[in-house]
This record gives sequence, C-alpha cells and structure tokens, in this order.
Amino acid sequence: MHAASPHDARRCDAALTHAFVVLGKRWNGMILSVLSGGEASFSDLRRALDGISDSMLSERLSELAANGLVTRTVAAGPPVSVRYDLTDGGHALEPALDQIRDWASVHLTRPA
Amino acid sequence: MHAASPHDARRCDAALTHAFVVLGKRWNGMILSVLSGGEASFSDLRRALDGISDSMLSERLSELAANGLVTRTVAAGPPVSVRYDLTDGGHALEPALDQIRDWASVHLTRPA
Repeated sequence: MHAASPHDARRCDAALTHAFVVLGKRWNGMILSVLSGGEASFSDLRRALDGISDSMLSERLSELAANGLVTRTVAAGPPVSVRYDLTDGGHALEPALDQIRDWASVHLTRPA
Repeated sequence: MHAASPHDARRCDAALTHAFVVLGKRWNGMILSVLSGGEASFSDLRRALDGISDSMLSERLSELAANGLVTRTVAAGPPVSVRYDLTDGGHALEPALDQIRDWASVHLTRPA
C-alpha cells in the first residue's frame, strides 16, 4: 500500500525547514508576536515574555535581526533609547501567527 | 509615546504560548508537516527528517500524541506494523504550515 519512501519528496522542503530553524526555537515565535503589536524596548519584551532571561532574550533578538525579521534602533539620548521592531518580513508572518493562535485555542486545549 | 507596559495585555495570550510550547521545539513542526502527506512508519519519518536520532523522534512522537495531534496505530503482524498519522487537530494545522512555508520562501532567504 505504501511505496518504500513515500516522504522522500518532502525531505527537501527547504523553506519549511528553514522556517522551523527560526520558529522551532523557544521564545522566537512569542517575541515576533509581541512585536507585532508595535515596537518595544528590551524591558517591554522581558516583561511580556514571562520567564525569559536577559541573556536569552538578547541572543534571540540578535538571531531574529540576523534573519532579517527584527530591527534594533538606538536613539541618541540622554537617555539612550533602544527600540526593537519588526521588519516587513517580520510583519509578513502575522497572518500565520494569527492562524496558529486560532488553531491552538481550538485544538490544543490540554496542558502541554 | 509609550505607556509603561504596552505589551502586558499580550503576556496572557495563552493560546499562542501553548502553540509554541509544542511548535517551538525542534522537529515538531517538521514531523507534523511530513505526516500531513499521509500516515508514515517510524522509518519513513526518520528518513524524511534528516539528522533526527531515534530517541529524539520517539520522544517527539510521544509528546505530539500526548497533545492530541498524532495517533500511533499498531497492526497485528507478522510483521507487526506501527503507523503514525495526524488526528483531526493535527490536520487542522496544515493551513498554518502552508502559510509559514510561503512566508519562509519569500522572507527567509538567508541561511540561518
């Protein structure tokens, strides 16, 4: 009933694999979701992401920036102000995040 | 320009947080994506997920089953055959996975 390797065609789905290199890391999806509400400071993000450490948040923001999804803007002070925001590419993920949120609220009712 | 905690309202977005407890773990999104093409054996999945270890795949499949997204069916043999498939809840994620794939192919062109 099944060919030997029915899933081989999909092993090269590079786009989805790449997406989950980014989204399949703890916090990244939530950081993008928080920023979809508008730019935020480091402290805003830390407050919104309950339980994240400063070093982890800093590392994740750098990765998201390296992937072209988040910008970091330093405004001259005093006081110096650093704001994080989504790029166009980051904003483009919002419909998918909405869909994931709707899916989870219907289909992920059990505690993980 | 900003209230003290502009993102507090979203810290309790339990549905999205819960979604990323599941999807924000390496391999889970890809496992669901491979199974969206139809049921598969353990070896089919291992072949499709380049680089996953047996113990990791086994652990992930158990977690996805505990979250109600994957079924494990044992057919009496010989040879005994174990097949993995998506539940309705797992299938319901497919439109979001398609959207993530499209987003990644446009906006995630750089190597991670």
